[in-house]
Amino acid sequence: MNTFGRLFRLTSFGESHGAGIGGIIDGCPAGLELDINLINDDLVRRKPGQSKITTQRQEPDQVEFLSGIFEGKTQGTPIAFVVWNKNQHSADYNNLKDVFRPSHSDYTYTQKYGIYDYRGGGRSSARETIARVVAGAVAKQILAVKGITVNAYVSQVGRITLDKAYYELDLSRTEENIVRCPDAETAEKMIACIEAAAKNRDTVGGAVTAVVKGVPAGWGEPVFNKLHADIGFAMLGINAVKGFEYGSGFEGAKMSGSEHNDVFINTEKGIRTKTNNSGGIQGGISNGEDIFFRVYFKPVATLLKEQQTVNSRGDEITINPTGRHDPCVLPRAVPIVEAMAAMVLTDHFLMSKLNTIDS
Amino acid sequence: MNTFGRLFRLTSFGESHGAGIGGIIDGCPAGLELDINLINDDLVRRKPGQSKITTQRQEPDQVEFLSGIFEGKTQGTPIAFVVWNKNQHSADYNNLKDVFRPSHSDYTYTQKYGIYDYRGGGRSSARETIARVVAGAVAKQILAVKGITVNAYVSQVGRITLDKAYYELDLSRTEENIVRCPDAETAEKMIACIEAAAKNRDTVGGAVTAVVKGVPAGWGEPVFNKLHADIGFAMLGINAVKGFEYGSGFEGAKMSGSEHNDVFINTEKGIRTKTNNSGGIQGGISNGEDIFFRVYFKPVATLLKEQQTVNSRGDEITINPTGRHDPCVLPRAVPIVEAMAAMVLTDHFLMSKLNTIDS
Amino acid sequence: MNTFGRLFRLTSFGESHGAGIGGIIDGCPAGLELDINLINDDLVRRKPGQSKITTQRQEPDQVEFLSGIFEGKTQGTPIAFVVWNKNQHSADYNNLKDVFRPSHSDYTYTQKYGIYDYRGGGRSSARETIARVVAGAVAKQILAVKGITVNAYVSQVGRITLDKAYYELDLSRTEENIVRCPDAETAEKMIACIEAAAKNRDTVGGAVTAVVKGVPAGWGEPVFNKLHADIGFAMLGINAVKGFEYGSGFEGAKMSGSEHNDVFINTEKGIRTKTNNSGGIQGGISNGEDIFFRVYFKPVATLLKEQQTVNSRGDEITINPTGRHDPCVLPRAVPIVEAMAAMVLTDHFLMSKLNTIDS
Amino acid sequence: MNTFGRLFRLTSFGESHGAGIGGIIDGCPAGLELDINLINDDLVRRKPGQSKITTQRQEPDQVEFLSGIFEGKTQGTPIAFVVWNKNQHSADYNNLKDVFRPSHSDYTYTQKYGIYDYRGGGRSSARETIARVVAGAVAKQILAVKGITVNAYVSQVGRITLDKAYYELDLSRTEENIVRCPDAETAEKMIACIEAAAKNRDTVGGAVTAVVKGVPAGWGEPVFNKLHADIGFAMLGINAVKGFEYGSGFEGAKMSGSEHNDVFINTEKGIRTKTNNSGGIQGGISNGEDIFFRVYFKPVATLLKEQQTVNSRGDEITINPTGRHDPCVLPRAVPIVEAMAAMVLTDHFLMSKLNTIDS
Repeated sequence: MNTFGRLFRLTSFGESHGAGIGGIIDGCPAGLELDINLINDDLVRRKPGQSKITTQRQEPDQVEFLSGIFEGKTQGTPIAFVVWNKNQHSADYNNLKDVFRPSHSDYTYTQKYGIYDYRGGGRSSARETIARVVAGAVAKQILAVKGITVNAYVSQVGRITLDKAYYELDLSRTEENIVRCPDAETAEKMIACIEAAAKNRDTVGGAVTAVVKGVPAGWGEPVFNKLHADIGFAMLGINAVKGFEYGSGFEGAKMSGSEHNDVFINTEKGIRTKTNNSGGIQGGISNGEDIFFRVYFKPVATLLKEQQTVNSRGDEITINPTGRHDPCVLPRAVPIVEAMAAMVLTDHFLMSKLNTIDS
Repeated sequence: MNTFGRLFRLTSFGESHGAGIGGIIDGCPAGLELDINLINDDLVRRKPGQSKITTQRQEPDQVEFLSGIFEGKTQGTPIAFVVWNKNQHSADYNNLKDVFRPSHSDYTYTQKYGIYDYRGGGRSSARETIARVVAGAVAKQILAVKGITVNAYVSQVGRITLDKAYYELDLSRTEENIVRCPDAETAEKMIACIEAAAKNRDTVGGAVTAVVKGVPAGWGEPVFNKLHADIGFAMLGINAVKGFEYGSGFEGAKMSGSEHNDVFINTEKGIRTKTNNSGGIQGGISNGEDIFFRVYFKPVATLLKEQQTVNSRGDEITINPTGRHDPCVLPRAVPIVEAMAAMVLTDHFLMSKLNTIDS
Repeated sequence: MNTFGRLFRLTSFGESHGAGIGGIIDGCPAGLELDINLINDDLVRRKPGQSKITTQRQEPDQVEFLSGIFEGKTQGTPIAFVVWNKNQHSADYNNLKDVFRPSHSDYTYTQKYGIYDYRGGGRSSARETIARVVAGAVAKQILAVKGITVNAYVSQVGRITLDKAYYELDLSRTEENIVRCPDAETAEKMIACIEAAAKNRDTVGGAVTAVVKGVPAGWGEPVFNKLHADIGFAMLGINAVKGFEYGSGFEGAKMSGSEHNDVFINTEKGIRTKTNNSGGIQGGISNGEDIFFRVYFKPVATLLKEQQTVNSRGDEITINPTGRHDPCVLPRAVPIVEAMAAMVLTDHFLMSKLNTIDS
Repeated sequence: MNTFGRLFRLTSFGESHGAGIGGIIDGCPAGLELDINLINDDLVRRKPGQSKITTQRQEPDQVEFLSGIFEGKTQGTPIAFVVWNKNQHSADYNNLKDVFRPSHSDYTYTQKYGIYDYRGGGRSSARETIARVVAGAVAKQILAVKGITVNAYVSQVGRITLDKAYYELDLSRTEENIVRCPDAETAEKMIACIEAAAKNRDTVGGAVTAVVKGVPAGWGEPVFNKLHADIGFAMLGINAVKGFEYGSGFEGAKMSGSEHNDVFINTEKGIRTKTNNSGGIQGGISNGEDIFFRVYFKPVATLLKEQQTVNSRGDEITINPTGRHDPCVLPRAVPIVEAMAAMVLTDHFLMSKLNTIDS
């Protein structure tokens, strides 16, 4: 079960300390002129060591394509790619061989498979998200042809929350600071919060907000594969995610129907809604308004602190991890959220071609 | 895209004012003795007209099986079923023929398909969830063989929230009141809240919490199909759902790693965690602890009030719906949440047989 | 695993002596005006009792649609249908309860599921093909919009073979005789062959040839899902089929490359091939020429003769079946072959929309 | 659509003149000790240049695994692999840039995708089957744990046919000659036939027979995914295949039911059939007897002769290919047939775990 998507599909592979992380994109339409730089740009946004508030591991992650592209264009054939693992310190993990680290997947993998590559978390490592970022960056280029943009930013770090709606922000400023919050003032507080956690050898969680603009009305499947259900599924599949809401979200649950309903109006640009509590999706199908949602991340489980736990023999032990780890994944999660959203939307773009005989 | 699940699969059909709602369950193991009464019990919990706080439509929903069961046992062959539509007042909808009701799917269906069965919401009607409840009730019987229970209850109605954790509640009391909240005192407040909304010809949202007990460690797929991602996908596919969280959820995003991590201990019952912020799932795989999550619903979009909107010709019009509608879907959503969770878990039970050659 | 197709999908249900046979068609484009008569016409071509050379069971098989159609048009929502079982003589099978009939599936079902509905073959009955004929008749109507026709006919009964190529025949004459062979002279011999077998209380096999005209160049997936691989898969899934060939087929294996290659020429109608050993498919993708293939059926396993076998306790016993059975399935197989081919082609029609961003 | 299989899945990638051919195996159970030598052995059987009757291209094809294996064992995680392209003479194809070669896929790919990697056939090259051989060799190792063997051999070259049934042959002798026919005398004739074709700058087709021993009763899905339908689908997806038959096959179509039926008997080894016209499969499900089938291949389309054709502008032209090509693919097809069969059987092995709650 390492395939994501129905028509635009990523099958991913790779472990933290294996040869590399990669995947196969199947179902990418033929004839797309692919800009490899844009893909590497997103890898740079994801990569470790990019700033003082991320892990200091240096991984020069650049994508290498193995198939599916000829003379710069997609061929309709599967697009295989790999990002080689180059800076793995496997020895760092020798002492973790039989240890079940708290809130990691060492224990659950062992229960499931009877076997576990303990080096750097193996398959459970967030390094696996590299494959998502590459495939998402391809998806973004398909969406761009249709005039669609996907933008995410950090809207919460620990208890620091950005109290502005996405439309009150200038999203082009997201990359101006290392925490990827488009509001400079809040960004500073977030950075301070992460630095405080790091100083305390602790970690901190937060939230990412994403906005998709330009999706026409009519994308999404009305029953199980509602557009927001597919987006939510994609987000909940990202490491450390604990919750998802779209449009009015949890707050919407407190509202009355008369407050929550989005009234239709007829404008120069066609039928629109006055408000957008629906988050651009009604009955599981896009209505032409902006799609927006928020994704909640728990704090990183790897602490550089002494912790109690057990090993595979059931002995209670104390661990005191060292190594190079993120105090907060939020800044690096931004391109991952965008990537997963872009893949879902590309999938629904392709599905929308099947609505009628002539669509 | 009307199929849910990979190994235990429901393909559903039906519109609000068509012949009936039903589906085909494919992948149900052979030899299961099926208790039809338990299935009808869940339909009773879902059906309209069950109390003063639900719609007063009377729909005597009982399941009829068409295949797959012989001498009381499942055969391994597809199990088809139908619940016939019997109390449809299609004429109620004649005046809605070309109307795009606010926050309904009239507009988006029309944009997607170019055509729309306006009677009672057609396929977008919550009546479609009947198929889920039937298939979920079958799934519950498979899980019961494995000692697994799935229990949901209403934990929020509008601004009334139940401020106790699931383990502080006696879940056997959920059915003792019409709002399906196991805390009698909070239940009363919730009922009053719904009655106030109804009186005001308005509607109200809320939340359902669910708990799954008895899942062994090792279920779930580690990457895209994390156990909580599949559960979240299932929940977000239910009509009116706006958000999903599991374990520590959104609150977890505010915590530090040292607060959030669940320490492993070795007990008489084997390896357990001291706390359960993980919600029973680590790295996407069950760890043997209780699985719990919360699902947020928006208020019902159909108000018995005058509202502005547009019709399919783009004319701005005023509608003033009549008919029999729910002021709050939460009480009826409880069996639907349970059903979707049961299907996901049955799917993962079957998948867990594939982990090793001999599993 | 009772779903056929990827984008145009049939999920079928039903046993020979259950409530009925039916299915759900998912992925049918919206807005198609459906002619129910055409569907029932194909059911008439499939149904028992239609002539002296088929079983004399009378089953008034007519389709009843339960969803997905409104005001005569498909809605894009799942199309559920059922053909009720009406003339089942279950008592005929009481003496077969624990018997493993030779070359039937009684034994293999029991080994697989541990349980078996012995009445009329249960799920393994060819009555299951009703669902295929219905879904195929819907698919034919989609293909008709694109100018595509699917025509099958009986080209072999036992040792009687029709020694003309499809293009030497007038396929509009297929329905003029009860064996469905468009060559009147050969038809007579085939009918005599079947009658001789029946008189001898024996059965006979044969072959069906099918021709698809009007498929444009470019349909089919080049690797695993080659167009002919999908067609062959569909055919081999029909009860009693033992072999499949397309284009030059088995004879092609004897030819040299210089005999076999189809030379391209440029004609008024565009690029064509001089010969068509490729059967209209090159590299798994249609080339615009006629697609043709042949399907081989074994003789019916139910003989009205004494036969040795064993029962579920392993006792060696003698059976002497009575009842109403086909001496030859070929005439009734013709609409089934057409139906399966039509579904495959519709699936590839939909897939062809995904080739490029703008296709 | 470059994924094969449902539970044991190969997603393949690669073009003839790209970086390499490879794939991802997903769904391989954890804990399997993998013998890489056995995989390379099958690659050697497939590779070009292995004898005087194959192409003289030298491709030192060895597999490199990128993930999913740790300390020699499968991890349950996706197994990615690549065989690098090393001996590609892309310049050989410059003059074919706009040419539609007869009975190749140049024309159909161009019609489908609007774009075509003409170098060595691109994705349509039989070099793509490397990925199948690798995944099939993994599948064979899973089947070996269950005591199942898969053996194929060449049973026809042009008009030279091997007139012995598989059980009259010593299959361990298949590898003793370069044409892979276990009957030495027939092998010599076949080799002579291929050499004659090569001398004539022509090519020749043929057939491969395969036998699977050790499959227990009860594998296979009864309706669309009959075991032989899945096998046939797999075979028809191999380049150049034109037909498939199993058990009695086409000859079975000529037989009467009383000749064809396989009588059940009770033996020391349990219930068996006296004859095996069923080819080990009844009602789509294995019955414990040997499974056998035959696959027909057309002659290679690339001739070293002058041929007429057209180019992409529609000009009628003459081509006269040079380069290193196979006069007959049959000897090299043997491991490919085995590989595809092994993958199908592994898939059904995994599916058989889902038959009942406790299976």
